[in-house]
Amino acid sequence: MSEVLKIFKIGGGIIDDAAQLGQFLAALARVPGPKMVVHGGGKGASQMLQDLGIAPQMVQGRRITDAATLDIVTMFYAGKTNKQVVAGLQQHGVDALGLSGADGNVIRASKRPVKEIDYGFVGDLDEHSVNTGLLQTLLGTGLTPVFCAITHDGHGQLLNTNADTIASSLARALAPFYQVELHFCFEKDGVLADVTDETSVIPQITPGQYQELKARGVIAAGMVPKLDNAFAALEAGVERVVIENALKINEPVKTILCRN
Amino acid sequence: MSEVLKIFKIGGGIIDDAAQLGQFLAALARVPGPKMVVHGGGKGASQMLQDLGIAPQMVQGRRITDAATLDIVTMFYAGKTNKQVVAGLQQHGVDALGLSGADGNVIRASKRPVKEIDYGFVGDLDEHSVNTGLLQTLLGTGLTPVFCAITHDGHGQLLNTNADTIASSLARALAPFYQVELHFCFEKDGVLADVTDETSVIPQITPGQYQELKARGVIAAGMVPKLDNAFAALEAGVERVVIENALKINEPVKTILCRN
Repeated sequence: MSEVLKIFKIGGGIIDDAAQLGQFLAALARVPGPKMVVHGGGKGASQMLQDLGIAPQMVQGRRITDAATLDIVTMFYAGKTNKQVVAGLQQHGVDALGLSGADGNVIRASKRPVKEIDYGFVGDLDEHSVNTGLLQTLLGTGLTPVFCAITHDGHGQLLNTNADTIASSLARALAPFYQVELHFCFEKDGVLADVTDETSVIPQITPGQYQELKARGVIAAGMVPKLDNAFAALEAGVERVVIENALKINEPVKTILCRN
Repeated sequence: MSEVLKIFKIGGGIIDDAAQLGQFLAALARVPGPKMVVHGGGKGASQMLQDLGIAPQMVQGRRITDAATLDIVTMFYAGKTNKQVVAGLQQHGVDALGLSGADGNVIRASKRPVKEIDYGFVGDLDEHSVNTGLLQTLLGTGLTPVFCAITHDGHGQLLNTNADTIASSLARALAPFYQVELHFCFEKDGVLADVTDETSVIPQITPGQYQELKARGVIAAGMVPKLDNAFAALEAGVERVVIENALKINEPVKTILCRN
């Protein structure tokens, strides 16, 4: 039986709140065994772009990453946020090591092809994107890799990449070597049966139940791509996907998605 | 006989010039054997502080690192510059991995004590600062560590640290395990016998010759702290210190400092 590896994805909401981030990192330090963190961006980068007079370009809700924007998001995600998370984990005794995709060629991406929209310097991942050998070496020496959502193309170009995609690509790629648990941490306690009732967390969802919940409209717009992505990861060999509150990772309340 | 490890320190001048940086990285890729890079900051961070209306605070020629300044230098050094260097080396086939001192607790510093000047969030290193075990593991797997000049105190605080000091501390700490060559790369071809003549490079300087050159005033103000630091590293077990042009690292012209 292979070892359990837990991958925690945290979003922008918690990155933007230093007190909550500290609480999450302290809780993460109590999670035993090998683990990884993937962090999103937060509002800091948009604020800095604005302060510098660089207007954020959005098309159909997606940020367009021009060269100036890539510079700022690289600075924010790979510099400020990544090093804050790493230093905070070190403070709590976790031997964290920050990574962009370029470091150790750990995640190689391709610049998204231009179709209707030119997304600019945005990276897409494929099944061979992840350097699993290096990650096994790092985990084997007791390190906790901390990923920002910046990758590279291997030809010197950094690329802005979706953090959820990075988390699920890491989970899939490492599934042959570990029993991977992929934890999506956000501000709610799990998937809610009733969006107006924070206590209506669904403890477990199978693929069949998911189809039914979608058909009945219980699972709403914003949650659908996240859960589609999660069930695809399960199909690709990930052992378990957990949707939980970033501030309650050591508490029993959460939604567990399982294969059957 | 232990293996040769080459540590290259590059300064702000080359960081600020994308074409020269690319040329240096391509040349570095042709250097055989285990190696590391330490990079300074460049003018970008000061420019960004200015663009954001944060006045750089200098006391006696030293930057005072307040919280806002630390944020920006962390973003610039650990984010933008570090990832550009790493992605550029990957492009040339070098398996580079970027590190701040917080990553893998690789360099732990102490906040400089307040005496006449409060330098703010500036880190000083001591003899136990460097995690040599992790560096040997990384080098052993064929990685090229790339250091920015940001360290941490182990209690969650990042610290701005002098890049020359980082380079020589790494060299000293690794001297028991490797034959360490410490390369200070800058815009001149070496230490000049005549500052008005770029071709007057002194090929080799022993400690005795250095004292004489200082006494005769041949080695001028700016060079003295760098060379004092270099000879101290040799005394502490570093095999060789090289002062050379960042764009000519594979050419024979350079100044070699040696123990005797």
